[in-house]
Amino acid sequence: MRRRAAYNLTMYAPLQNDTLLRALRRQPTEHTPIWLMRQAGRYLPEYRATRERAGSFMGLAMNRDYATEVTLQPLERYPLDAAILFSDILTVPDAMGLGLSFAAGEGPRFASPVRDEAAVRALEVPDMAKLQYVFDAVTSIRRALHGRVPLIGFSGSPWTLACYMVEGGGSDDYRLVKSMMYSRPDLMHRILAVTADAVAAYLNAQIEAGAQAVMIFDSWGGVLADGPFQTFSLAYTRKVLAGLKRDQDGEHIPRIVFTKGGGIWLEEIAASDTDAVGLDWTMDLGRARRLVGHKVALQGNLDPCVLFAAPEQIAAEARRVLDSFGPHPGHVFNLGHGISQFTPPESVTALVEAVRTHSRARCAAA
Amino acid sequence: MRRRAAYNLTMYAPLQNDTLLRALRRQPTEHTPIWLMRQAGRYLPEYRATRERAGSFMGLAMNRDYATEVTLQPLERYPLDAAILFSDILTVPDAMGLGLSFAAGEGPRFASPVRDEAAVRALEVPDMAKLQYVFDAVTSIRRALHGRVPLIGFSGSPWTLACYMVEGGGSDDYRLVKSMMYSRPDLMHRILAVTADAVAAYLNAQIEAGAQAVMIFDSWGGVLADGPFQTFSLAYTRKVLAGLKRDQDGEHIPRIVFTKGGGIWLEEIAASDTDAVGLDWTMDLGRARRLVGHKVALQGNLDPCVLFAAPEQIAAEARRVLDSFGPHPGHVFNLGHGISQFTPPESVTALVEAVRTHSRARCAAA
Repeated sequence: MRRRAAYNLTMYAPLQNDTLLRALRRQPTEHTPIWLMRQAGRYLPEYRATRERAGSFMGLAMNRDYATEVTLQPLERYPLDAAILFSDILTVPDAMGLGLSFAAGEGPRFASPVRDEAAVRALEVPDMAKLQYVFDAVTSIRRALHGRVPLIGFSGSPWTLACYMVEGGGSDDYRLVKSMMYSRPDLMHRILAVTADAVAAYLNAQIEAGAQAVMIFDSWGGVLADGPFQTFSLAYTRKVLAGLKRDQDGEHIPRIVFTKGGGIWLEEIAASDTDAVGLDWTMDLGRARRLVGHKVALQGNLDPCVLFAAPEQIAAEARRVLDSFGPHPGHVFNLGHGISQFTPPESVTALVEAVRTHSRARCAAA
Repeated sequence: MRRRAAYNLTMYAPLQNDTLLRALRRQPTEHTPIWLMRQAGRYLPEYRATRERAGSFMGLAMNRDYATEVTLQPLERYPLDAAILFSDILTVPDAMGLGLSFAAGEGPRFASPVRDEAAVRALEVPDMAKLQYVFDAVTSIRRALHGRVPLIGFSGSPWTLACYMVEGGGSDDYRLVKSMMYSRPDLMHRILAVTADAVAAYLNAQIEAGAQAVMIFDSWGGVLADGPFQTFSLAYTRKVLAGLKRDQDGEHIPRIVFTKGGGIWLEEIAASDTDAVGLDWTMDLGRARRLVGHKVALQGNLDPCVLFAAPEQIAAEARRVLDSFGPHPGHVFNLGHGISQFTPPESVTALVEAVRTHSRARCAAA
């Protein structure tokens, strides 16, 4: 209770732009809200400057003031409809004691990957105090936003975190984690159960610290076979969802589930207890909407590589995505994956402008 | 006509095992035929020994006798129902003059990637004489098979070849090829049109040289957005199919189209002029069959990582795939992707045995 009291409602400015939250509730909006996965990132020179000052990626992610600064940077440039916590996807396994590091030019590495029975048995839900730097960042960002737009908190899904925990880093073929899954499903289930509890606690603490929506990134759900996806990925995403707070300070906290490569399982994902489903660019949004009806909002789904084209081509592709969804409430515009570090920042200007203009005209006509 | 006469029917032994060809025609079989993508490969010690003698990967692929030797190796170990030409997917762009090489431990590289208008304009369908080493290998393998099983010829799809041609090698994000596609669709269409004509000529020459079925690998179709997939990948796969010979020496030559990550577009792929559609492991085969009916045979779709489990687990997963397809004609068992180089060879023994036993019992019961 001490934590909740420390972050009570009165300290935050009222929300001025609730377009995202309304779209997530499938309510009408004046325009289609837009934010971009990894919108605070390397494609922005101001991000690279802050990153330089921080000295390292983890130095950036673990420092409340830096995390606040970079989270707000894209909002200074573009009229986006949401902020998303700047943090790493691997904070939870790091707090479990796996020893996260980032070698220069390489991806993340765990010093102690979880590869045998002893390591699996030793896993525990970490003390959330070890992740206080994340919750402090959430509160700091929420304050700094002054109610401009809502703040989205996030976590990796249990399966996606387990991929990193077993592989010890990124992977091309997910051979180690899938070998464990097929050979020792009992161990895999234990990793996932502990991780799901940890993720639920982590997201609840973000909600208590000020997150106004939460997103679960199942970045590697799409590498699973049909069958194992439902058993080892979706079941544990559902376990997280079942453990999440529905409201904070009287406000509903919407949930978004994004499974990269999950279009094939859209109806099953939409049947989870989620407000919205994020889609990558392989799925036609109109077809997706026909499949799920009004049960959930949909978020997506422009190919990030469109942002390497000219402004008029970006605008045309953005209109194509908006038109494929059609004139219904419940669409949050986004990319189908994180923005590329090579994206020209002015491409984002063109995209946001196109989405705003075209969707406003459509909403007015509807 | 000279080429056809040189490879006339009389020189080949009659086919003893036509299970694959019957399954591709959706005709009943005594068991479900099985072969494995990349079945002649690094997981086999005898392959590694031949590769050692050949000195390099291209030395292996470009030598008729080595290519014949390694193509037959998996058939010596396992009672597989098909052989597939051992060759590289990038032979066609190499013959176009792009300069293929393989650095040790790295993937393929093109010395002259196709990245600007001049390079695109210079592209031409290569003289098939430059690919004679492939057709010689086809004839040599067909002879060496003595009619044991049919020989499958193959090519990359135009889009998949174009990915390598523009990127200059493998890619994580397909940024260069997609940038060209979104920015200069005219150039992309020209690359694909020339490549489709080249692929059709290449597959026709394989058919004339002795291939008894052909497969088009659209390995990177699944990285495209809905819309661009149909326009830049499937349309050119169709162009290839439209240019292919239907028969050789009075025998129908079945076609198989495999799009990695293409489950979402299954119905559209199945509506191409193909006999069979290959599926990766993300798609439930029973659902796939319900979607396409009896229009095409289906090939797949075990996760290659299952082969890292114990024999009884491999058998259980193989049964699951067979049962999901159900007791209908028109299934060719395969992995959902190429076999991993780290696969224990005895896992393949367990897999082939399980598929044979379980499908034979089912076919007898049906």
